[in-house]
Amino acid sequence: MSDEARLDEDDILLAEAPPEEGARPDDRIDDERHDEENRLKPEYLRAVREALEEGDKGAVYELVEPLHPADIADLFELIDRDERGALAAAITDLMSSDVIAELNDYVREDMMEALPAEAVATIAEQLETDDAVQLIEDLDEEDQQAVLAELDAEDRAAIESALAYPEETAGRLMSRDFVAVPEHMTVGDVIDYLRGRLDISSDFFEIFVVDERHHPVGTCALSWILTTPRHIALSDVMKRDQTLIPVTMDQEELGLMFQKYGLISAAVVDENGRLVGQMTVDDVIHIISEEAGEDVLLLSGAGDGDINEPILEAYGARVRWLIANLGTALVGSAIIAMFGAAIEKLVALAVLMPIVASIGGNAGTQTMAVAVRAIATNQLTRANTWRIVARELRVALLNGATIAVLIGIGTAAIFTPHLGAVIAAAMIVNIIVAGMAGVLVPVVFERLRQDPAVASSVFVTMITDSMGFFAFLGLAVASGLAG
Amino acid sequence: MSDEARLDEDDILLAEAPPEEGARPDDRIDDERHDEENRLKPEYLRAVREALEEGDKGAVYELVEPLHPADIADLFELIDRDERGALAAAITDLMSSDVIAELNDYVREDMMEALPAEAVATIAEQLETDDAVQLIEDLDEEDQQAVLAELDAEDRAAIESALAYPEETAGRLMSRDFVAVPEHMTVGDVIDYLRGRLDISSDFFEIFVVDERHHPVGTCALSWILTTPRHIALSDVMKRDQTLIPVTMDQEELGLMFQKYGLISAAVVDENGRLVGQMTVDDVIHIISEEAGEDVLLLSGAGDGDINEPILEAYGARVRWLIANLGTALVGSAIIAMFGAAIEKLVALAVLMPIVASIGGNAGTQTMAVAVRAIATNQLTRANTWRIVARELRVALLNGATIAVLIGIGTAAIFTPHLGAVIAAAMIVNIIVAGMAGVLVPVVFERLRQDPAVASSVFVTMITDSMGFFAFLGLAVASGLAG
Repeated sequence: MSDEARLDEDDILLAEAPPEEGARPDDRIDDERHDEENRLKPEYLRAVREALEEGDKGAVYELVEPLHPADIADLFELIDRDERGALAAAITDLMSSDVIAELNDYVREDMMEALPAEAVATIAEQLETDDAVQLIEDLDEEDQQAVLAELDAEDRAAIESALAYPEETAGRLMSRDFVAVPEHMTVGDVIDYLRGRLDISSDFFEIFVVDERHHPVGTCALSWILTTPRHIALSDVMKRDQTLIPVTMDQEELGLMFQKYGLISAAVVDENGRLVGQMTVDDVIHIISEEAGEDVLLLSGAGDGDINEPILEAYGARVRWLIANLGTALVGSAIIAMFGAAIEKLVALAVLMPIVASIGGNAGTQTMAVAVRAIATNQLTRANTWRIVARELRVALLNGATIAVLIGIGTAAIFTPHLGAVIAAAMIVNIIVAGMAGVLVPVVFERLRQDPAVASSVFVTMITDSMGFFAFLGLAVASGLAG
Repeated sequence: MSDEARLDEDDILLAEAPPEEGARPDDRIDDERHDEENRLKPEYLRAVREALEEGDKGAVYELVEPLHPADIADLFELIDRDERGALAAAITDLMSSDVIAELNDYVREDMMEALPAEAVATIAEQLETDDAVQLIEDLDEEDQQAVLAELDAEDRAAIESALAYPEETAGRLMSRDFVAVPEHMTVGDVIDYLRGRLDISSDFFEIFVVDERHHPVGTCALSWILTTPRHIALSDVMKRDQTLIPVTMDQEELGLMFQKYGLISAAVVDENGRLVGQMTVDDVIHIISEEAGEDVLLLSGAGDGDINEPILEAYGARVRWLIANLGTALVGSAIIAMFGAAIEKLVALAVLMPIVASIGGNAGTQTMAVAVRAIATNQLTRANTWRIVARELRVALLNGATIAVLIGIGTAAIFTPHLGAVIAAAMIVNIIVAGMAGVLVPVVFERLRQDPAVASSVFVTMITDSMGFFAFLGLAVASGLAG
């Protein structure tokens, strides 16, 4: 275990023992603007909106001025769309690049489309390349060209080179701002070289060491440089075992790499293995959150699922899946129609059949959610598929037996023991089928190189609905219940 | 925009222009052990398992030796439970603390329970405090005490102090390893102080500046220290506007803080405002991924949803929700039973009614997924609830109208125009109800300080099922279809 008691070890660190009282409140939490979960308070929002409505720019400015740029971005997202222009006009000199970079994509796109190309170009010039790319990639082709034409040659070249890579790849997302040094340097050389380089505007956490062909040969955390004597050669401190990110790597895999190897930054290399950029963890963190959170939206067929998405886009994304669901529901209906005569004879069948379908659907969704997350986090692979299938089969047997007993006894008591036995058997069959479909459908989509979160739901629901109706009605007829 | 062309600006960096050919393959990707998505290949797994089965420890060691610790952890997760002991025995000196720290919680717990307390204590001693806490908190009370008794006093005190905080709070998760300096130091003083401190074992990215009461007054990124002349005072470089994490903060909020403010590390303070630890982004990244990914598991009622969870625990977590779903399905059945006479007269009602319930359920799930994610990411707050409800109502109207037209025309063609009109009207009603329930149910749970992802599903499904059957069968009877 490492020196967790360092603070007490070294008297440089402490002039005296810390007193027990005199708490200093956190700057950001529990102030008059934030609630206890660090969200802007409704009362604060109301004050800003009232000042906006009265056209009192001074009051708006005074209210917004103490906010962190990330909170100003939140403020824009929380107010109504038609209030955003007035807010931006009231706080022009607070509209820093940090605010723009932190805005929700849809809100930013909407605000940028309202501005002339020169204004967008002025904003883009103040941003780091990766943030400027985000700003410009949202615009339509024509606006993109207009903004690019306003930029100076160097910025334009950098942004065009980023835009040449597909969306959501390392080439598009990487920062072109990094520190690379040759391997023959010593720790002292590096410190002298960096000293006074105030032109290095963005934070960096590691230095990349390159060979004469500009291929990365190692990385060196700044903390190692600071804790190592000056005369030591960089090649003796650097970590040679590095994780290189090809420019073509997809952001999902990039996020997994950062998580798996605990990376703080990583070198991005082109197809010739040359260092062309870096990804840092503060950018990757957004990617990880987005990728991990999107499964629930994709599985439910909610598309992008952003509350700032324009209504017509949200409608388009969702109605597609409702129509697909309509198709699968028709399969279930067709099966019910086959047993119309039995239902006419015994209406209890119509009363009970949705239970078998519904619980099967729920069991299938459970297994599917587990499988989709395990695939997304690289835990479920070709190497252990059958072990996981066997595991899900066992869970399904236990679940099926439990539910079958409950519903069987209840049905026997209210209707007849015969009907109780039929529904219990149908329930076991459907929960097992649901468990198997819940894991196998996503696995098959993944093998076919499709995102298992996107389409699995429709198939699993179709299987559990159809099987629910078929097993229950079929068993009822076959056992002579309503023949 | 910052100096993205730095590499070409400074001839220190490049001895010569990089040649165009001679790509250096990535160390980790596309090697003989990993597939293109950086997962261990099934063939590699097979080779390891065969060597294990033959008891050929030398061959196992040779196969595993080139792996990164995170990949060794993956290997343990991918092989069967009963093979893990043999693997650990074959590669004892590769079982570094990094391997243990990277193991899945369930797999680690399982492996630790198989070891005697002294062995676990030996492993814990090699880990950093936060990783040791993770190892020990998994064990049951008795084993915990046995392991703690084996530790030396200092390690034991650190771990006991962490265990005194509730699970998933900053106090439990923080690292007690950090660098703090007084504000009167200059940049040069800090470099001299750190130089040669090889006892600082873990990476750090920022230095915390504290006052005489040991309260943090600012943070200083290492890159600022390295790029600033020696004589500058730390208080002139440090960032005074900092985000302090109280020891009691929950990990979910901690993750949101790191994302919102783009933090790389943050000071953790006790109730008196004194610096007691730090959270670094490499640990927070796991939290963010876990928190964002768990919504899909919670909404589906899959509990922890980890494929390494013991079968009985997975069964227990899932069957609870299936039983809850059984309860809600009975409500739907009771409604159908009310209309038994109508169904006997017109069996088409039984054929069509699941469609109305199923599509309503799907529409509700879509809205619910959007609302749950928006709440989890602090985008849907008290300040904009009604705007989002209004938005979801509009999306629901569009979806409802579309599906109603499709199903109405189809039903009119196959059955009767009257039945077509009934199902179309019922569909509009149910999709609107689903949209409202999908956003309001999670919002109400959040207001009641319950996790909206946990229980929303059961309620929304109950509402959409019941309303689907009631609206369709009720409208059919009321309009004289099967009276």
